[in-house]
Amino acid sequence: MTRWPTPEAMTRALELAREAARVGEVPVGAVVVKNGAIIGEGYNLTRSSPDPTAHAEIEAIRRAAKHLGDERLTGCDLFVTLEPCAMCAGAISHARIARLYYAASDPKGGAVDHGAHVFDQEQCLHRPEVYSGMAEGEAGELLREFFRERR
Amino acid sequence: MTRWPTPEAMTRALELAREAARVGEVPVGAVVVKNGAIIGEGYNLTRSSPDPTAHAEIEAIRRAAKHLGDERLTGCDLFVTLEPCAMCAGAISHARIARLYYAASDPKGGAVDHGAHVFDQEQCLHRPEVYSGMAEGEAGELLREFFRERR
Repeated sequence: MTRWPTPEAMTRALELAREAARVGEVPVGAVVVKNGAIIGEGYNLTRSSPDPTAHAEIEAIRRAAKHLGDERLTGCDLFVTLEPCAMCAGAISHARIARLYYAASDPKGGAVDHGAHVFDQEQCLHRPEVYSGMAEGEAGELLREFFRERR
Repeated sequence: MTRWPTPEAMTRALELAREAARVGEVPVGAVVVKNGAIIGEGYNLTRSSPDPTAHAEIEAIRRAAKHLGDERLTGCDLFVTLEPCAMCAGAISHARIARLYYAASDPKGGAVDHGAHVFDQEQCLHRPEVYSGMAEGEAGELLREFFRERR
């Protein structure tokens, strides 16, 4: 059996997560793609900013919106190495992201398939298609290693 | 009967909401207060930025974190003219806001006392004290007027 190859955008998100770890931030990376091209990317920067809202997804979405000159990222995909929290899931819905691909599941803080289940609320105005699991081993190991070293 | 006076911080949040309406943005304003002083404020700027994450609360929290040089707004209060959405409730929790005061209730988009009930999730690491209803008439009328003019 040959494993399905990790898409380029998720490979880039993993690189961004590694960059976050190098600067002492929780290793999560995110990339926004439109028509096959990266139009926004980012990694967790909450400590160094300092800015509690500077999660990878928020950084990537803000840059993509600036790039397009539009608050709506219609037809865009978001690739992120960890299941988004409530804040980021809310931002993904506001941004009208078409497809969300996340790597590692996050039972403790995720709000897509856990906790607040933001997209499953009746009031949610825009729900992206959601795909998960791709590259979850590598994404999860980056996080475990980061927290192990800091214990 | 004399009505309880609106606290200065909520009066300022209402002013910011009016400023948002003047520039064509949904009229919501927010203020972060520490030890009685405003350390961050903002209003909805999603269209003019453009940035789908630029809600009043996010703007105010980002500025307060920069002001304190700390991603945690420990001991701070947030005053906002509308019930926070899932994105903003998540940000409020990440920022460790001690007390949240919101004016108008938002059954359609609010995620504090409606929908995702972000702070009521078992996984929620920090839940602020929540107070609502203060100045709700004025805050709600600003929103109704804004959408009435745009219909």
